[in-house]
Amino acid sequence: NFVYVHLNRVIRERDLDVIYVTGPGHGGPGLVANTYLEGTYSELYPSIGQNADGLRRLFKQFSFPGGIPSHTAPETPGSINEGGELGYSLAHAYGAAFDNPDLLVACVIGDGEAETGALAASWHSNKFLAPARDGAVLPILHLNGYKIANPTVLGRMDDDELSQLLTGYGYTPYFVEGREPAALHQLMAATLDEVVDEIHAIQHDARARRSTGRPVWPLIVLRTPKGWTGPKEVDGKPVEDTWRAHQVPLSELATKPEHLRQLEEWMRSYRPEELFDAEGKLVTELADLAPRGARRMGANPHANGGLLLRDLALPDFRDYALPIAAPGARAAESTRVLGTFLRDVFALNETAQNFRLFGPDETESNRLTAVYEATDKVFLERILPTDEHLSPNGRVMEILSEQICQGWLEGYLLTGRHGLFSCYEAFIHVIDSMFNQHAKWLKSSRNIPWRRPIASLNYLLTSHVWRQDHNGFSHQDPGFIDHVVNKKADIVRVYLPPDANTLLSVADHCLRTRNYVNVIVAGKHPSPQWLDMPAA
Amino acid sequence: NFVYVHLNRVIRERDLDVIYVTGPGHGGPGLVANTYLEGTYSELYPSIGQNADGLRRLFKQFSFPGGIPSHTAPETPGSINEGGELGYSLAHAYGAAFDNPDLLVACVIGDGEAETGALAASWHSNKFLAPARDGAVLPILHLNGYKIANPTVLGRMDDDELSQLLTGYGYTPYFVEGREPAALHQLMAATLDEVVDEIHAIQHDARARRSTGRPVWPLIVLRTPKGWTGPKEVDGKPVEDTWRAHQVPLSELATKPEHLRQLEEWMRSYRPEELFDAEGKLVTELADLAPRGARRMGANPHANGGLLLRDLALPDFRDYALPIAAPGARAAESTRVLGTFLRDVFALNETAQNFRLFGPDETESNRLTAVYEATDKVFLERILPTDEHLSPNGRVMEILSEQICQGWLEGYLLTGRHGLFSCYEAFIHVIDSMFNQHAKWLKSSRNIPWRRPIASLNYLLTSHVWRQDHNGFSHQDPGFIDHVVNKKADIVRVYLPPDANTLLSVADHCLRTRNYVNVIVAGKHPSPQWLDMPAA
Ligand SMILES: Cc1ncc(C[n+]2csc(CCOP(=O)(O)OP(=O)(O)O)c2C)c(N)n1
Ligand SMILES: Cc1ncc(C[n+]2csc(CCOP(=O)(O)OP(=O)(O)O)c2C)c(N)n1
Repeated sequence: NFVYVHLNRVIRERDLDVIYVTGPGHGGPGLVANTYLEGTYSELYPSIGQNADGLRRLFKQFSFPGGIPSHTAPETPGSINEGGELGYSLAHAYGAAFDNPDLLVACVIGDGEAETGALAASWHSNKFLAPARDGAVLPILHLNGYKIANPTVLGRMDDDELSQLLTGYGYTPYFVEGREPAALHQLMAATLDEVVDEIHAIQHDARARRSTGRPVWPLIVLRTPKGWTGPKEVDGKPVEDTWRAHQVPLSELATKPEHLRQLEEWMRSYRPEELFDAEGKLVTELADLAPRGARRMGANPHANGGLLLRDLALPDFRDYALPIAAPGARAAESTRVLGTFLRDVFALNETAQNFRLFGPDETESNRLTAVYEATDKVFLERILPTDEHLSPNGRVMEILSEQICQGWLEGYLLTGRHGLFSCYEAFIHVIDSMFNQHAKWLKSSRNIPWRRPIASLNYLLTSHVWRQDHNGFSHQDPGFIDHVVNKKADIVRVYLPPDANTLLSVADHCLRTRNYVNVIVAGKHPSPQWLDMPAA
Repeated sequence: NFVYVHLNRVIRERDLDVIYVTGPGHGGPGLVANTYLEGTYSELYPSIGQNADGLRRLFKQFSFPGGIPSHTAPETPGSINEGGELGYSLAHAYGAAFDNPDLLVACVIGDGEAETGALAASWHSNKFLAPARDGAVLPILHLNGYKIANPTVLGRMDDDELSQLLTGYGYTPYFVEGREPAALHQLMAATLDEVVDEIHAIQHDARARRSTGRPVWPLIVLRTPKGWTGPKEVDGKPVEDTWRAHQVPLSELATKPEHLRQLEEWMRSYRPEELFDAEGKLVTELADLAPRGARRMGANPHANGGLLLRDLALPDFRDYALPIAAPGARAAESTRVLGTFLRDVFALNETAQNFRLFGPDETESNRLTAVYEATDKVFLERILPTDEHLSPNGRVMEILSEQICQGWLEGYLLTGRHGLFSCYEAFIHVIDSMFNQHAKWLKSSRNIPWRRPIASLNYLLTSHVWRQDHNGFSHQDPGFIDHVVNKKADIVRVYLPPDANTLLSVADHCLRTRNYVNVIVAGKHPSPQWLDMPAA
């Protein structure tokens, strides 16, 4: 809430284009409450109006079977991040910022969440974000000190060590710390002004070509007590500023009148009678503080990417066909042929800037090499004369983390763009759980009328089991298909094109589909070619 | 090779107990070669003797179907880390060091590998290692600058920024950089002496109770060219110190006589005639430099943990039985009952120090709370008066990363100890790929006579699909069972105990088994109890 209203202020003051990504466990209510207050919630869910009855329904559905989850989810206006499985907020935020030069993605990261592998690796995404072409990510690391039942690793580090860590990740940390609301509001407001200025200065320099290379981006460390402004003590035990604030702080209300009393006191401490009018509507004076229309973070079209989605311009895949005199008469590397098609996908969508290829350092190994005739690999670090195909403007993204590739791609797709993830078949299991959650997102979105269809998540799996005998057992695993087909066919599609022409036709098809996860398994080694294009 | 022989020197000089964990992609040959040279390889694989014929067989099997993989694997003497799927070396190293006060685990980390989520999160393991009770981990971050086809993120950072990052992670970095072999040898030797002194000083202080809290451990940054001492150029393109050194630098030897000539020149540059005698045996003068017997890193029993494995002392699980008057007549939280049994497992093995419980901050939520009567959660950071059950000596390990929990546990089991991993069912998919690789390790190990059986990897999955309706769709996923049963029954076992007494009996059984992965899915919510203990 604190962060949201402060962002609202800078959005209004500077007419900024901002979306809000929030990672921490069960942090859904913050976004639900704020999108309700700014009006978006009632526009999207008319049954939850801005009145007492609407409020009652809003409270009742929360974290309740058949209602809405306790974390951000597809149901949450303005969200591109499912907060259920922790760890992906920052990668999603970067995915959203790529190719959106005017977008600022504010990303709240839980200190618990920050212990996950995916999050720990995501910090380095700043090495792949080009300030001249891409938008900005403002990470807000929320150190409330606790996760479910434990202090957090980052929360217990002292400011010095933490500052070194974040500086080492390539950011300038700004500390916003305290427990005195009024003072903290002032500090947060001043800090936000400062970091937004800094972000604009970086972008300005890069776009005026006054600087090249990787800038040091600002980052906010927000250190507040967990359960801030909630009950300080319950049953004689401290709650605020301890892990006990994670769970429902006051439970068994039906049998414990003391808890009920404390709850009432706590709720009344926010002085609802000054905030809402007699009908249960937010008073105009406060409602007016929110940005207008699509500037409201709950209504920003980037967070409902289908609204912005444009079809990819695709070359005719038949033009890339391998001539086949007779089935099996010649051999070829199927993925190499696909590379020529993808090269021209890049070229045709050069102005639209809405297609990227992702992979854990395997694009070349997977023989998609032709793409480098149309684009480079993006890299913001120092580039040496011996390097090839590297530049800050590349559209191929290679980091040795299947999790980050997946997270970036999800963020990119959810904000209305297109992409393909190429990976060794054996190691795609690293993102089994992320695939699961994205498939669930797609499934839930189908039932949410205001969520518009987005481009499918396309996997190209090569180096498949049959051709990894030299690398040994660890590199052999066809099990991802089994994992994927656990989901229903209305969400997942699996393709096993046996040769180059079939692969071309399949890839063309997949890039046109919406709301699926498409898994294409194809060989990269020279192997017999069977079908000519009409047959394929 | 460089690191291995330098470690050999300090092992000899100080009679150290060291194992070697190596992560980088396809770094297997280093360990294979050195264990061959120190004699372990021929002891374990008598057909590969220390003569010309043995050398020939050794070369021939490398990275060849039916031979051995190009990375470290179960077949590799001295290894507890499968180097195929990158990212787990450092978590394995910490797992090995826990409860092994005299062990030093040297862990070589690739700069490519360091981009993975698992590795990025593993650095913080130092917050869970107690210098008074546990051994030490010496991370050696190998910055050869490149992964397969790209520069690495860490490799292109300047020393300053990298140093801040590593300091922020809680280490003191020592830089060993250069390309002049003679100078680098001197530098590495001096640095190793210094860091080993520092490690001993830390341990000494902690064990003499002169210091408490978390020490700042040393770490080596080794910056050498990729493909060091290999061919500098091939076909007019630079190879040494570029990504081209990742692949086979000289290929198509049958058709390219120039490549064959270069290969010969390269191989001869190591002056084999001075290293091996006429029979192909390493000359005595060099062979004598290696440590003796079990001090050789290839023969260290910690790396073949089954050699050190002792049975757990287990209480009689029947003593924890819930009395059942009639099936379904009462309700109970099954995992809470299991907690009392586990509490006494901790108590009974207090002197053996060979059992730990791992979980991503969910032990309490999973209602195993009784264990805190016998032990604490380990935490080396600042502990506050409001904290409960936290201490540097705890045996419950909670970090919000399923990957790290899994990696620690694997390292702990592979060095001959016992453990249990408790996790929400939905999020265990985060380690699908790690489970896969561990199951493969177990399967391969069965066929390697010298690998002794280790304790099974036990999962306790709670918060299962049926009881996550309030948290929503993201928290519901029974699919891990499907994933697991893709493996054969001689490796994996799945148990679905419906009540507390069955769970007790299953847990007792699982903790006695060897070389399996046991998956136990059980409820934490109050639910009807069916079987009395004899029936269970
Ligand atoms: C991958 C994953 N593992 C475990 C959980 C269970 N879990 C839910 S919330 C939480 C603690 C989150 O702490 P933090 O990110 O600091 O958020 P806070 O609630 O403190 O704002 C955990 C461990 C989860 N949601 N996802
Ligand atoms: C999880 C995973 N993803 C991708 C790969 C494919 N791969 C093999 S080696 C390698 C590069 C490794 O670089 P580094 O760790 O620096 O080791 P180096 O070979 O340079 O010593 C990659 C990406 C892999 N083995 N594991």
